[in-house]
Amino acid sequence: MKARGVSTGTDRTRRTENQRGGGGIGILIIGELINATSRSVREAVLNHNRQVIQVLAANQARAGADYLDVNVAAGLGDVEREAADMEWAVQIIREVTDKTLAIDTTDPTVLERGLEAAGPGAMVNSFSLESNRLEPFLGLAARYEALAIVLPVSDGGVPQEPEERLANCRELFAAAQKAGIEAGRLYFDPLVLPLSVTPASGRATLLTLAGIRQQGWQTTLGLSNISYGLPARKVLNRTFLAMTVGVGLDSVILNPLDRELRGELVASLALAGQDPMCAGYLRAYRRGELG
Amino acid sequence: MKARGVSTGTDRTRRTENQRGGGGIGILIIGELINATSRSVREAVLNHNRQVIQVLAANQARAGADYLDVNVAAGLGDVEREAADMEWAVQIIREVTDKTLAIDTTDPTVLERGLEAAGPGAMVNSFSLESNRLEPFLGLAARYEALAIVLPVSDGGVPQEPEERLANCRELFAAAQKAGIEAGRLYFDPLVLPLSVTPASGRATLLTLAGIRQQGWQTTLGLSNISYGLPARKVLNRTFLAMTVGVGLDSVILNPLDRELRGELVASLALAGQDPMCAGYLRAYRRGELG
Repeated sequence: MKARGVSTGTDRTRRTENQRGGGGIGILIIGELINATSRSVREAVLNHNRQVIQVLAANQARAGADYLDVNVAAGLGDVEREAADMEWAVQIIREVTDKTLAIDTTDPTVLERGLEAAGPGAMVNSFSLESNRLEPFLGLAARYEALAIVLPVSDGGVPQEPEERLANCRELFAAAQKAGIEAGRLYFDPLVLPLSVTPASGRATLLTLAGIRQQGWQTTLGLSNISYGLPARKVLNRTFLAMTVGVGLDSVILNPLDRELRGELVASLALAGQDPMCAGYLRAYRRGELG
Repeated sequence: MKARGVSTGTDRTRRTENQRGGGGIGILIIGELINATSRSVREAVLNHNRQVIQVLAANQARAGADYLDVNVAAGLGDVEREAADMEWAVQIIREVTDKTLAIDTTDPTVLERGLEAAGPGAMVNSFSLESNRLEPFLGLAARYEALAIVLPVSDGGVPQEPEERLANCRELFAAAQKAGIEAGRLYFDPLVLPLSVTPASGRATLLTLAGIRQQGWQTTLGLSNISYGLPARKVLNRTFLAMTVGVGLDSVILNPLDRELRGELVASLALAGQDPMCAGYLRAYRRGELG
């Protein structure tokens, strides 16, 4: 089966352009807003309301997202229905933007339909050591020449300790190599647990992140999970973004419409030496995006 | 000569209480606002305007500063005058707060008069390898049982490279040991150069900071220098604070009246695992200090 998609022909070029710079700054931003855990997105998916999804896609692209996450899991437990929803969502998003899509699902059938609709250069979000997920997801990532987010989770659950997370990362790296997926297509997620439930969570993420970077692998993380269940979530999210960029982030899943978050990201990159001559920072200032 | 001072008898107790917690959070905050590089402070020093200085002291103490920096260098080139100004400033600050004072000067005469007025437990800001500063400052720090900020600067200037800064730190640590000043009284500053002049400055600071921590030594830094000469300074300052707390800060010199900075600090400490159960974060939220 050959992959197809509205913008197949330009995907490779776009991917290269997007990496660290599509949004004008030195980190890959994955927009998180098309996610059926949000009630409005869930309803739009169930009713096939094109406009809601397309506006979210266009707004995130305009705000500097390099990739767009697509999660249509409405919780009906009907895999065929969900696979059809994923295909629909990918196709209507393709009508308004050619940003690379991250197919966000735990089911291989849904993943395959999403990758098929998105075309080569898409991203698998995500694979892990969980036995129902590892082999099928790796196979699909290889076949569709996709990038992939790697979660160091196993059948035993989410490890608390950085050392165990890093051990899982090494195992996942070896499995990906065996499946023919080179390191440059992988983004390792150190795992972000809510600080409200796991008080040592921030530190565990930072230590795991540093360990992944020491291996020379690319990193990503789902930012907003850190603040789940706590007040003033935006303060925690933006602060954690700065801390993780300081340790070393190559990519991040976040809300690109959050203006303060974007300001913090632009500042972080200048401070981390990833914005030569502060050009991106000064541009953001001139556009009125800071302060 | 024995040290004296308004609150000599309580200084030791206060110092212990202050360290990592005087302001209710797990890092030592040194308030930066009493500094004659600011025009209003310079004029207040030259005219011995008590009120300006005392209000700055009281406001910073109320906002959570653990220590207060005192710099009265008005640039007149008259050391005797400056030493008298330092004594005056320390004495009038003592009337409104018993916070520990950091005597901020490059001149040993001014330092001695400040330490003498402040009493034991004060802080020397700062000593370095510069030949006119090293021996006299170490001697005074030892004699007045002071804490000290250590700048890895030499007669050759400010090193750009983290490795050279760390080499200077090691040399300064050895000199302090020899003078009888134990490691627990030293705060090593990785040096913060303006990003506007030195684009790699943020990264150099972060790497030096990590190196100092690896040695097991305490750290501090002058935050706002990073943003000198750039617009939207508050965004850069707060972002750099989060990044440096993520790498490991024991103390920081900043403007305690900057509300956003304080919010970012509280969030950083929760994220770095220095605020068990997020108690400090939740307290700051209830007080309306976040978001």
